[in-house]
Formats: sequence, C-alpha cells, structure tokens
Amino acid sequence: VIVSELLKLLSPNKDLQGKNVLVTAGPTREAIDPVRFITNHSSGKMGYAIAERAAARGAEVMLVSGPTNLPTPIGVKRLDVNTTNEMYNMVIEHSDKADIIIKSAAVADYRPETVAENKIKKGDVDIAISLTRNPDILKKLGEIKKDGQVLVGFAAETQDIIENAKSKVERKNLDFIVANDLTKDGAGFKGDTNIVTIIDSTGDVQHYEKMDKKDLADIILDKAKSIYIKE
Amino acid sequence: VIVSELLKLLSPNKDLQGKNVLVTAGPTREAIDPVRFITNHSSGKMGYAIAERAAARGAEVMLVSGPTNLPTPIGVKRLDVNTTNEMYNMVIEHSDKADIIIKSAAVADYRPETVAENKIKKGDVDIAISLTRNPDILKKLGEIKKDGQVLVGFAAETQDIIENAKSKVERKNLDFIVANDLTKDGAGFKGDTNIVTIIDSTGDVQHYEKMDKKDLADIILDKAKSIYIKE
Repeated sequence: VIVSELLKLLSPNKDLQGKNVLVTAGPTREAIDPVRFITNHSSGKMGYAIAERAAARGAEVMLVSGPTNLPTPIGVKRLDVNTTNEMYNMVIEHSDKADIIIKSAAVADYRPETVAENKIKKGDVDIAISLTRNPDILKKLGEIKKDGQVLVGFAAETQDIIENAKSKVERKNLDFIVANDLTKDGAGFKGDTNIVTIIDSTGDVQHYEKMDKKDLADIILDKAKSIYIKE
Repeated sequence: VIVSELLKLLSPNKDLQGKNVLVTAGPTREAIDPVRFITNHSSGKMGYAIAERAAARGAEVMLVSGPTNLPTPIGVKRLDVNTTNEMYNMVIEHSDKADIIIKSAAVADYRPETVAENKIKKGDVDIAISLTRNPDILKKLGEIKKDGQVLVGFAAETQDIIENAKSKVERKNLDFIVANDLTKDGAGFKGDTNIVTIIDSTGDVQHYEKMDKKDLADIILDKAKSIYIKE
C-alpha cells in the first residue's frame, strides 16, 4: 500500500486531475428467497482497474460496486450495492456531477417478480421463477446525459459481438462501447486480461489484442479523455 | 503456514487418526446461460472449519467443495465442483471408504431445466425460468449408508427449524443434524460464528450458544466420533 501510494505521488501523469469519474463494477444479485439468488460471473476486475488507473491519474473517482472480493483501489471512494435497483438509484444520484461515466458493471437484467420471505422448501415437483425486467441503467444515463459528459458502456457477448455493440452505442446514446467476446480464451469476466473491440459513436471500430485489464483501463481512459477535451 | 504445520505436528490430540472423513462445503452454481447462474449465500466457512479440525485431529480428510474464496486447509485433499450434479457424482464416488460423512454444503436443490448455449438477450417482455429438481445427495447417502458409517447433515432454515430438522434426520437416515436459524444474528452462512441446535437419531436435542465455527467443528467431530465408536 505504501509503495502504491508513493508511486502515485511520484507519478508524473496527473492528466485527469480535476475530473470526476464515475465507475460501476461487479455483478449484482437478485434474491429468490433469503438463501438463493441469481447473479453472474462478473469479478469486477475490469471496473476496479479503471477506477484504480483513473485515481492514479489524478481524477476524483467514485466506484459503485456490486459484491466482489476485491480491495478498494487507493484514493477511490467506493459505494457498495447488491441489486440492480440499488445500483440504479446510486448511479443516477451521482451521475450529475460526473465528467466521465464508465459503466463496466454486469448488472442483472431481470429479477424474480416476487422475493419469498422465507426459504422455499423443496418439493418433488418442478417449479418456475417468474422474472421481471430491471431498470436499464445505461439507457437512463444516455437519456439524462449532460453536454460534454462522456458515457462509456460495455458489451459482453457470446455471438454477433460487433453488431450488438454498434446497436447499443446508438440506442443508449453512448460515446463508445468496449465489447468483448466471452467465448474467447483470455477475454471476459474472470481473468486479469481481456480481448476487446472499441466502437465509438462515429462508427470507428478498433480491435485490440489480449492485454492486461490495467493496460486496457488506460486505453479506455485515454479515449474518454480525448472525447471530453474535444467537446 | 509453517506455524500451523508445526502446531499440527505438536498437537497431542490425534484422536481421529486412521479415520476417513468426507466433508462437503460451499454453495453450488446452476447455469442459466454462459453468464448468469443461480446460487446461494453459503461461504463454505463451516465445512472448511470441519475439514481443518478433522485434519488437525489426525483424520484423512477429503473436502468436496463448491466455489468459495477460502484457502484449502492444511493436510486436506480438496476436490472442486460447480453444480449439484457434479457434487453428487464426486460424493457418491468417494462415500464408500468414508467412516464419517459431514454434508455441510448448501447445494442448489433446483437447476434450470435447460441451459442456454448463448447469452440470453434481454427483451422488453418478462420471462420465466423453469427449474427441475437436482438429485438429493444426503438422501442418497442415507440409502447407501454402510454399517458403522456416521452420516451428519445440516439444516439452514428460516422457520420451523426443529420440526424440519427432526423430519430430515428420519427421512434421510442421518445420525444427527446440525440445524441453524438463518434469521438469527450470528448464525448462518456468512460470518465466522454460528448458533445451532444438534438433533440426533435418538431424538436428543441439544441447543448451543453462539460460537466460533472452528469450536463448533470440534463439537460436531466429537459427536460423530462418539457415535462411530459406539457402533
């Protein structure tokens, strides 16, 4: 910790000084009953790497995080949430003062329609869980986007990666999207590396080779900064 | 690690030497698609504490574990699984040579009837997931139980704790069950303590105050040993 702190103090590149960066990370959890829940494989590593690098580069960073096993990066203000609704409320509340918003969390799109108050006893019959749509955080952020604010999304897909990502940039009013193919070795949720394609609102498509999530964090922040300055 | 190893070597109480102990721990995960899954709040701490104490007391310990963030206890052979079906197969395969079986895992009782090959795209309509029953590991262990083998179950409940636990001892041919009330502060999945009631096949009911999971592990092993010796 002391070494990281020193490196940060000594770091010459404080190019995000004075910028407010809001990052979301991790999965969310949706309760079925007091014991069981629906979640996903997101580790939070990508979002935490972005928060860490943004703080190291001098930004004021707020990290809204679902449940992960990661330590809070140095200099980052972290707010913990469990459900997508909680993340929605927290993010919308803090979005107004953000210059750059990077939504890397993999939130649950659906939640059980009702949450059982007591643990559901197993029986011999098959059952079904009715699911209802959660609010779309990224779409809402696109709708309330302020002039000059930079909005970055992620797309983790297993098929039709580029088409899905392009459509998401338009539908959600994003500046750019970071798309990754979950079926590729070295990409996705669990590891320390990712393999991505970045697609921006001008239609530019840039492929990147497998790299460390911290290096990718800097590439994403570089691109966000260049758009922020241009506007 | 070196200190623990030394303590173990110096430990005078090797009362489980020569015994084979099979412990299950943690949650299981049931995939909905490549990204989403159903799981539960089990941390694995109770089962890992039992495995650790059994090994420290000289037993040969096999730990069949769902996904947890815990290190493997010293001297314990650990086999990792994800789904309830995987745990069922692993446990049944290794049950024959076990003198004592302690099933502390909180396995998923249900799994999605079908697992989507690709990530399910979210739409605007509500959906439902059809669930089907998983095999009942504890019930099967009770059916194939050998003479002299000691079988211990757990019951994590939010209501009718004692009645449910008593019925489970009978239905599943257990020697005893460790029941805990998830609604109590200091009991259940996440913390380092538990508050339990132990109910055995003779109908004896013993309540315990809040205690460290490692101390409770020794109480469970003491009771299992006393039954093993009696038979």
